[in-house]
Amino acid sequence: MARINENYRKLQAGYLFPEIGRRVKAFQTEHPDAQIIRLGIGDVTLPLAPAVVQALHAAADEMGTAEGFRGYGPERGAEQFLLDGILEYDFAARGVTLEPDEIFVSDGSKQDSANIQEIFGPNCSIAVTDPVYPVYVDTNVMAGRTGEADTDGRYPGILYLAATEENGFVPPPPTGPADVAYLCSPNNPTGAVASRDDLARWVGWARNHDAIIIYDAAYDAFIQDPSLPRSIYEIEGAEVCAIEMRSFSKRAGFTGMRCAYTVVPKALAGTTASGERVALNDLWMRRQSTKFNAVPYVVQRAAAAVFTPEGQKQTREQIDYYMANAALLRDGLGGAGFTCFGGEHAPYVWIRTPEGLSSWDCFDRVLGEAHVVTTPGAGFGACGEGYVRISAFNSREKVEAAVLRIRRAFAD
Amino acid sequence: MARINENYRKLQAGYLFPEIGRRVKAFQTEHPDAQIIRLGIGDVTLPLAPAVVQALHAAADEMGTAEGFRGYGPERGAEQFLLDGILEYDFAARGVTLEPDEIFVSDGSKQDSANIQEIFGPNCSIAVTDPVYPVYVDTNVMAGRTGEADTDGRYPGILYLAATEENGFVPPPPTGPADVAYLCSPNNPTGAVASRDDLARWVGWARNHDAIIIYDAAYDAFIQDPSLPRSIYEIEGAEVCAIEMRSFSKRAGFTGMRCAYTVVPKALAGTTASGERVALNDLWMRRQSTKFNAVPYVVQRAAAAVFTPEGQKQTREQIDYYMANAALLRDGLGGAGFTCFGGEHAPYVWIRTPEGLSSWDCFDRVLGEAHVVTTPGAGFGACGEGYVRISAFNSREKVEAAVLRIRRAFAD
Repeated sequence: MARINENYRKLQAGYLFPEIGRRVKAFQTEHPDAQIIRLGIGDVTLPLAPAVVQALHAAADEMGTAEGFRGYGPERGAEQFLLDGILEYDFAARGVTLEPDEIFVSDGSKQDSANIQEIFGPNCSIAVTDPVYPVYVDTNVMAGRTGEADTDGRYPGILYLAATEENGFVPPPPTGPADVAYLCSPNNPTGAVASRDDLARWVGWARNHDAIIIYDAAYDAFIQDPSLPRSIYEIEGAEVCAIEMRSFSKRAGFTGMRCAYTVVPKALAGTTASGERVALNDLWMRRQSTKFNAVPYVVQRAAAAVFTPEGQKQTREQIDYYMANAALLRDGLGGAGFTCFGGEHAPYVWIRTPEGLSSWDCFDRVLGEAHVVTTPGAGFGACGEGYVRISAFNSREKVEAAVLRIRRAFAD
Repeated sequence: MARINENYRKLQAGYLFPEIGRRVKAFQTEHPDAQIIRLGIGDVTLPLAPAVVQALHAAADEMGTAEGFRGYGPERGAEQFLLDGILEYDFAARGVTLEPDEIFVSDGSKQDSANIQEIFGPNCSIAVTDPVYPVYVDTNVMAGRTGEADTDGRYPGILYLAATEENGFVPPPPTGPADVAYLCSPNNPTGAVASRDDLARWVGWARNHDAIIIYDAAYDAFIQDPSLPRSIYEIEGAEVCAIEMRSFSKRAGFTGMRCAYTVVPKALAGTTASGERVALNDLWMRRQSTKFNAVPYVVQRAAAAVFTPEGQKQTREQIDYYMANAALLRDGLGGAGFTCFGGEHAPYVWIRTPEGLSSWDCFDRVLGEAHVVTTPGAGFGACGEGYVRISAFNSREKVEAAVLRIRRAFAD
């Protein structure tokens, strides 16, 4: 008799975005003429950059010839031409030196941040910020590292660090120990960005407690101030306590293309029950070679095109376009009395709900009266209650229209 | 202090193919002039079919336009146009009716067969055939369902069913219960194919014990006899006891493109400790929506092209080409006194090692004297000892040369 993994039953009513999708679908069914503007899920809208499309075409042609055809990809997942771009543009340019075999190319930071917990022991204690990208929590619940959720939706076994207006939505490290801590900067959902000092405190804490930081930098390309850290490895000592995840999804419109990578420095080690130190790079390599295959060759070629001069220029223009949207949201809603956070180094604006509305009530009202989809902050954790996230990923026209509609819906 | 998942340390010296890769690399370094022919890893060699390349180009163009661009894929992973092809060509054409939401499109059957164990309880008993595709076993070891390997490399907690010359390499179901059983037909590595009667016995056993069969049909396109089952759902009652995996990797040269799918019928249920029945379709949906994103749009378009009339014709010609290679291997080596199995409905020929050589000794001798890479049967399990697997995936010229070289190496 096949018993199920009962940890799945501890999960809340559904992963956040499917739940939003259900509500939007129900609204659209009842109001078929409503022109809904989607600023909910953080999905890019601009077409792929010409340099990327060109690389896709070239790779498709290669795959159709006997000489150019490629079957299974390299064992570690990455083609050399893509590794070269990553090492040079994402790290060497920021003064960080990494080895090629510290980089694991994958089909998404969602996948990597979901799977990374597999290499840790079942009793590791987990720390997350609150609000938090739900994948970090849910995958630890599914793996059995928690008890049943309490009435706030919080799980025993997870340490929640409140991201609040008071700490600028960048919580300091815990005062005590934890084994694995997830950090996301620029942050999804709050749009807050960690400074060099913030990260130095985290690295100090992790080294002090022999903890591992899972640093999700999927939104690094949106950082406008060059003095802010783009990689945690810009902080001294991070290579002995941090795994970093980066993605092409938001920086180059790859949400429908799927390419990302995870850095697992060789200096990083975990511990066995007997105290032996084991390289996490070896464990992740084993995980990936057993459970994954390389990203499609054509997609790796497309990703590598992001590092060409044209690719750099074209994708930077995309980022600028979205960040101008973010400024419109901040200014347009802020000017109407909404209290706005984020949106300066991230494509998300984090808004305090007006009139003391709950997150989901605000979501429903904005959907019902402005026909705009947002993301309720409470869907990201108890501390997200009283906020909604608005995404800057859409056309200028739709963002402008959304600002006007939301202002009108809340004008009295 | 971050403790590691110590189950990883129970794994044998390395996933089989990386180990082969290391030996081949070492040989090539010592013999830089040797013209090595690779008939080891089951990787396709023919270029993508023209219909597939054309679809890739069209999709790349779409992704470069505002109207055609696609971000995140559908929640269940599959675009409707791909689902339509799968339902019609892979199932309806064989008399099997499935619902669209019973199909989950993914980036590989390796991934799906690795991940599927996550939805089952930690104490489920696992049955596999021996020899076996290592992923089924290794992923259960990594999940902690086994003890330490014994001297034969077998893990306590896994029931091994011997695939032998006597049972035609298709073992009958266990005499007692097991919770989850992995079956692969046409089989990797032996090339054996299960008959309708074989599968009916397995389905009967599974229903009797409320067990779940994980049916890996990644090689179904190589079946030559139309009366043999291509899907386990051709067997009555399989929809209440079987999950099926299918892939575009071998049928259409997609090993470097990454597209596959898994069928989880809605009638399929597992059990909780309290005896409640839970739909496995819901659990797998939850797993995939939390830990996966859809396959790239361009890849889904490429896969759908396999179902067009030209795509069907072109990919059938590829299969015919590889199967002609398999016949060459069977006839050429069989004629020289080797005892050969498989290769009639599968791209693999399973050869009894001559002169009582062990699998790895035979591998080393074929590599050293014929400069041909095979796969040692022992790498697939204790019952694979005394066999090597030869793959038909290569050019006609190389397969012909390999036959001649191996005959010469073993001529006395």
